[in-house]
Amino acid sequence: MKRIYGVDMGGTTIKLGCFDPLGVLQEKWEISTRKEGNGRYVFDDIAAAVKGHIQGSGLSLQAVAGIGIGLPASVREDGYIEQCVNIGFRELFPAAELSRRLERLPVACANDANVAALGEAWKGGGAGYDSMFLITLGTGVGGGAICGGKMLTGSKGLAGEIGHMIVRPEEAEVCNCGNRGCLEQVASATGLVREAGRILAESEAASILRQVRPLTAKDVLDAAKTGDSLAVQAAERMGFYLAWAMSSVTHILDPAVFVLGGGVSKAGSYLIDCIRGPYERMTNLSFRKAEIHLAVLGNDAGIYGAARLMLEEGLF
Amino acid sequence: MKRIYGVDMGGTTIKLGCFDPLGVLQEKWEISTRKEGNGRYVFDDIAAAVKGHIQGSGLSLQAVAGIGIGLPASVREDGYIEQCVNIGFRELFPAAELSRRLERLPVACANDANVAALGEAWKGGGAGYDSMFLITLGTGVGGGAICGGKMLTGSKGLAGEIGHMIVRPEEAEVCNCGNRGCLEQVASATGLVREAGRILAESEAASILRQVRPLTAKDVLDAAKTGDSLAVQAAERMGFYLAWAMSSVTHILDPAVFVLGGGVSKAGSYLIDCIRGPYERMTNLSFRKAEIHLAVLGNDAGIYGAARLMLEEGLF
Repeated sequence: MKRIYGVDMGGTTIKLGCFDPLGVLQEKWEISTRKEGNGRYVFDDIAAAVKGHIQGSGLSLQAVAGIGIGLPASVREDGYIEQCVNIGFRELFPAAELSRRLERLPVACANDANVAALGEAWKGGGAGYDSMFLITLGTGVGGGAICGGKMLTGSKGLAGEIGHMIVRPEEAEVCNCGNRGCLEQVASATGLVREAGRILAESEAASILRQVRPLTAKDVLDAAKTGDSLAVQAAERMGFYLAWAMSSVTHILDPAVFVLGGGVSKAGSYLIDCIRGPYERMTNLSFRKAEIHLAVLGNDAGIYGAARLMLEEGLF
Repeated sequence: MKRIYGVDMGGTTIKLGCFDPLGVLQEKWEISTRKEGNGRYVFDDIAAAVKGHIQGSGLSLQAVAGIGIGLPASVREDGYIEQCVNIGFRELFPAAELSRRLERLPVACANDANVAALGEAWKGGGAGYDSMFLITLGTGVGGGAICGGKMLTGSKGLAGEIGHMIVRPEEAEVCNCGNRGCLEQVASATGLVREAGRILAESEAASILRQVRPLTAKDVLDAAKTGDSLAVQAAERMGFYLAWAMSSVTHILDPAVFVLGGGVSKAGSYLIDCIRGPYERMTNLSFRKAEIHLAVLGNDAGIYGAARLMLEEGLF
């Protein structure tokens, strides 16, 4: 059975995974991302890592079916990337770059958030469902949509970019994207901390959060779980905005399941409880509501998804 | 060349179109919807209409490649319909019902709003684009999404139901769906009239709308075009909410083009002008913005889409 490699390129590290064709992870490791020369060496490094790994098993490149890559950039339909800000390279075809360093092995590549969604849909919180929407709650809010088992990329690579959906047009602070009132501003780890700070400032009520410096999203959610009323207010506000965004996703795409990943999702069933009530209220048209699951692959979603992408698109 | 029939079932009339396989409409007509016996005769009537039409051309059913149907209900993936409120029938497989009355001709069926989107994507305002989102602005607000040339139905038939996306959670009035603050409440013909009424009541300013009884959406938009400031305010409010919803669609699905249909879209480029500014502001992540077109097929979108559905799905 041939092997598949899944590669998740990040600004700091590049994660690699070796899979069998059924998607069983055989081995995973990471290398650091060389940013010198505008990231021009990353493809050499990935090629060397794959070659080294295959040779270490006493095999040749003929034993590899192909490689999938997820990377932090918008990938045009023909595979072209205008700019990959976090790593530095620009104006190239990443799949072609890697393929020509590896004896023309098939390589498929796509945006990392969409690839992570594909991973969770394949072997994670969305496994067994035909349609899924992944929401990644970390420093920012990302997402990816799977419909009929396929990754949606959109006409300009914006599909799944739920973090920049506007949910609070009256917001005064500016989001990283330049707009005001994005979901990311209220439902990311950073956003939750800012909202908790606002709630603390507006109230005189006691809260264990008043003693915590610096405040983290985990502090807020832990305090909410113990019943701290101001922390509960912050968590419920986040839940409301997530629910609202998910209700919009339902009226546009109607996925069978939402999968919540990223650091904030470690709050687990408490987070889901904050979302489910308002989500179901705001999704009135159908008695059957989408399920809400937690992501299960953690940081491995990208390599799983990249391997799956290769299986779907690389073997032409 | 075999013929295809496209059928658009409504609560009052059933529209039929006869197409060649390239999608050129040969002839269209309509019959009224018999609601007696919980709509149980509609399939007999459609079968008779198709048989009559084909015999009138001196041909037999062998000359028909198949039939597509759009109907006002949620169609499960296996073709089952729980309930078709506007016509009355329930718990049946419409495609199978029609097929067995027509010597087992292939029949495909789907929700009418999604089918209309497919029609506009095929031969209307979205022709030539791989992905499109249709928004129908009539008494209510409907919609349908096309991705990679395919109709999205969603896991529970809610895909494209943009009219019930919540855009104003603080709204006091209740929408037909039971929720408050749906897009339909502010951006339908009915919604525009209600908002204009509110704006007139809140202001003392002069407006030609104060003389008009009863007020229609066309009155409001016509007055706005002449520069009547309160009417402009109503039109811009509708434009803002539509833009907001379209910006959400972009961050979820990212269609290449939006197509606006329904009675309100007769306001033409003025309507698009009300939307484009706020839409582009709220869609900051990409320099390239989705295009906004007007629908071109009018009431024929359903029969075109039904014929296309047959071409895509019926020939198994």
